[in-house]
Amino acid sequence: MQENKRKMASHSFVAELVRKAPPFKGAIDPFTCVQAELELVEQNLTRCIRSSEAALTDISSHLIHGGGKRVRPLVTLLAFKLFGGKKLEDIVDIATAMELIHTATLLHDDIIDGADVRRGKESAYKKFGLKATLVTGDFLFIKAFEFAGKFDDTVVQWTADACTRLTEGEMLQGSFNRNLNVTLEDYLEIVRRKTASLFQTGARIGAYLAGAKPALVQQMDEYGMNLGIAFQIIDDVLDVVGHKELLGKPVGIDLRDGNPSLPIILALNGGQKVVAEAFECAHPTTEQIRGAIEAIREGSAIQQAKSLSKSYAERAYKVIKKLPPSLYRNGLKTLVRLIIERDF
Amino acid sequence: MQENKRKMASHSFVAELVRKAPPFKGAIDPFTCVQAELELVEQNLTRCIRSSEAALTDISSHLIHGGGKRVRPLVTLLAFKLFGGKKLEDIVDIATAMELIHTATLLHDDIIDGADVRRGKESAYKKFGLKATLVTGDFLFIKAFEFAGKFDDTVVQWTADACTRLTEGEMLQGSFNRNLNVTLEDYLEIVRRKTASLFQTGARIGAYLAGAKPALVQQMDEYGMNLGIAFQIIDDVLDVVGHKELLGKPVGIDLRDGNPSLPIILALNGGQKVVAEAFECAHPTTEQIRGAIEAIREGSAIQQAKSLSKSYAERAYKVIKKLPPSLYRNGLKTLVRLIIERDF
Repeated sequence: MQENKRKMASHSFVAELVRKAPPFKGAIDPFTCVQAELELVEQNLTRCIRSSEAALTDISSHLIHGGGKRVRPLVTLLAFKLFGGKKLEDIVDIATAMELIHTATLLHDDIIDGADVRRGKESAYKKFGLKATLVTGDFLFIKAFEFAGKFDDTVVQWTADACTRLTEGEMLQGSFNRNLNVTLEDYLEIVRRKTASLFQTGARIGAYLAGAKPALVQQMDEYGMNLGIAFQIIDDVLDVVGHKELLGKPVGIDLRDGNPSLPIILALNGGQKVVAEAFECAHPTTEQIRGAIEAIREGSAIQQAKSLSKSYAERAYKVIKKLPPSLYRNGLKTLVRLIIERDF
Repeated sequence: MQENKRKMASHSFVAELVRKAPPFKGAIDPFTCVQAELELVEQNLTRCIRSSEAALTDISSHLIHGGGKRVRPLVTLLAFKLFGGKKLEDIVDIATAMELIHTATLLHDDIIDGADVRRGKESAYKKFGLKATLVTGDFLFIKAFEFAGKFDDTVVQWTADACTRLTEGEMLQGSFNRNLNVTLEDYLEIVRRKTASLFQTGARIGAYLAGAKPALVQQMDEYGMNLGIAFQIIDDVLDVVGHKELLGKPVGIDLRDGNPSLPIILALNGGQKVVAEAFECAHPTTEQIRGAIEAIREGSAIQQAKSLSKSYAERAYKVIKKLPPSLYRNGLKTLVRLIIERDF
C-alpha cells in the first residue's frame, strides 16, 4: 500500500486528484507516465495564445492557466504510448487541440450559463464581459484547428466530428432545459455528445496515430466514450454533494440553470416533487435550490448515479483488461478509478 | 453600352448587385464566370448544415439561405480560374469554407452588437436567442474547418491565420468602441484584419491552388486585401447614406453601437461635435443618432470615404492590369467596380 502510494507522485495538474485518491494495487500516476509529453502540451498552449491583441492572450490565459485537469490530452497521450507511439511530434499537437477545444467550449458555456465562477475564480465571462469572452472562445477554436489541421484527413474528420457532436450535445441539452420530460436516455445522449466525444476521439486518435490496428482503435474509442460518461456523471454528482472549495464553484448550479443533470433526472423519476418544482422554475430561489439539493441528498439518486458511473467505469476497465500489460495500460486503468473516486 | 448591359446577366446572389451597377466597357458579370462552381458551393453549404439537431440546421439556414452576396467564395473561385485552375474539387471546398467562416462571424457579431436585423429580416440572435445562435456560430466554424482541413498544411495555416486576424480585428474594434481617440490608422488596421483578411486569403489560396507562382500568389493577396478594404469602406458609407430597404437593415447602426466606422472617424477629424457626442454616448437617443447622421451627410466625410474606397479599388485594379487578359481577369475587374458602386 505504502509502495503504491509513493508511486502516485505529486505532479502539477492531476497531482491533487492523485494525492486524494485511495491507493490500490497496481495504481500508477497516469500523469507521470506521459509527463514529458504533457509539458510539451503546456508549452504549445502557452505559445499559441500569444496575440497582438493582449486581451485575447489574457482571457485565454485566465482559463488555460487556471487549473485545468488536462484529462483529455492525458487520455490522448496515454493511448498513443500504449500502442507503441514513439515520435512526440506525432501526438503532442493533437493532444493540445483536444484541450483547446475543451477550453473554447468552457468559455462559450460560461456565456450560455451566465456563470460567475469557474475553477475557483471569477469566470472569464464575469471578468471580461460577453463580447471579449465570445471572441476569445472563437480564437481558441481556431488555434485548435490550426494544430489539428496538420494531421491527415482521417484525424481532421474525427476531430471535426467530435466538435460537431459537442455543439449538438449543447443544443440537445438546451432543448431539455427545465424540461420535466427529460429521460435517462436523453441524458446519456447529451453526455455522449457533449462530454464523452472529446475523450473518445482523443483515445481513438492516440491509438490510430501510434499505428494500432482498426479493431484496437475501436476499442480505445469505447474506452474513451465510457470514461467520458463516467466523468460527466461524477461532475453531476459533485454539483449536488461536492464542496464549494474543492470544486472551485458553488453546488446546485445545475438546478439554478435548469440543466438536466443525472441526479436531478433520477430524483424526478423517484417522484421528488420539491426537485421537480425547483428544476421547472425559471428563477428558483436560493431556498428552493437548497430544499431540492437536500431532497436529492436524502433520496437514492446519488447512490444510483454513482452506481451508473461505476458501470461505465467497468466498461472502460473491460477494454483495458484485454490489452497486454504495460505502464500505460496501468495509467489508463488508474485514471478511470481516479475519475470516479474524485471529489473535485 | 447595351451590349455590355446584356453581358451582365441576372443571376442569383450577385444578380442585384450586377443589375444595379452602371455598365461600362469590358464589364462582365463575375458571377456567370464561375456559375457552376458557385452552385457547387451552394450545394456544399446546404449539405454541411444538416444536423441531427434541427435547430442547428434551421439557424444556419436562416442566415446562409438569407441572401448573402457570396463575394468571398466568388473571389476565391475567380482567382483559381484566372491562373488556369481546372479541377473543381481542388477549389470548391475551400471557397465554401470562406463563406462558412464569414457566416459564423456574422452570427457571433450579431450577438456582440445585439443586432435585431440582418439581411432584411430578424437576426438569428433576435429570433433564436443568444444561446442557440452562439452554438450555431461554433457549428459553422467547425464545418468551415472540416472543409479547410482537407487541404495541405499551407492552406490550413493561411486559413487559420485569416481567422486569427478576424478575431484580432474584432477585439481591436472593441477597444475603440465609443473611443474618440480612434485614428484613421487604427481603422485601417481593424478593417485589414476584420474584413479584408478573408478576401485576401481567398484570393491567395485560389491562385496558390491553381499552381500560380509565389509572386503571382502574392499579387492576388494584394488584390484581395485592397478589394476587402474598399468593400468595408462602402459598407460603412452605406450605414450613413444607404436606404433601409436596400440594405436590409436600418442606417445609423455604427453610431448606435459605437463602432468606429470610417465616416464617423472622418467627421470626428473634421471637428463635428454632434457626431463626437453621439459616438461617445453609451446610449445615444434616436434624435442624437439622427442629428449625427445628418451632420455626417452634410459634411465632407462621405466624399472623403468614397474617395478612399476608390483609391483602394485602384490598387486592386493595378494588380489585375498586370495579368494577361482573360474572362476571369475581367470578372475580377468588374467585381471591384460593382463593389464600390453598390448601394446595398
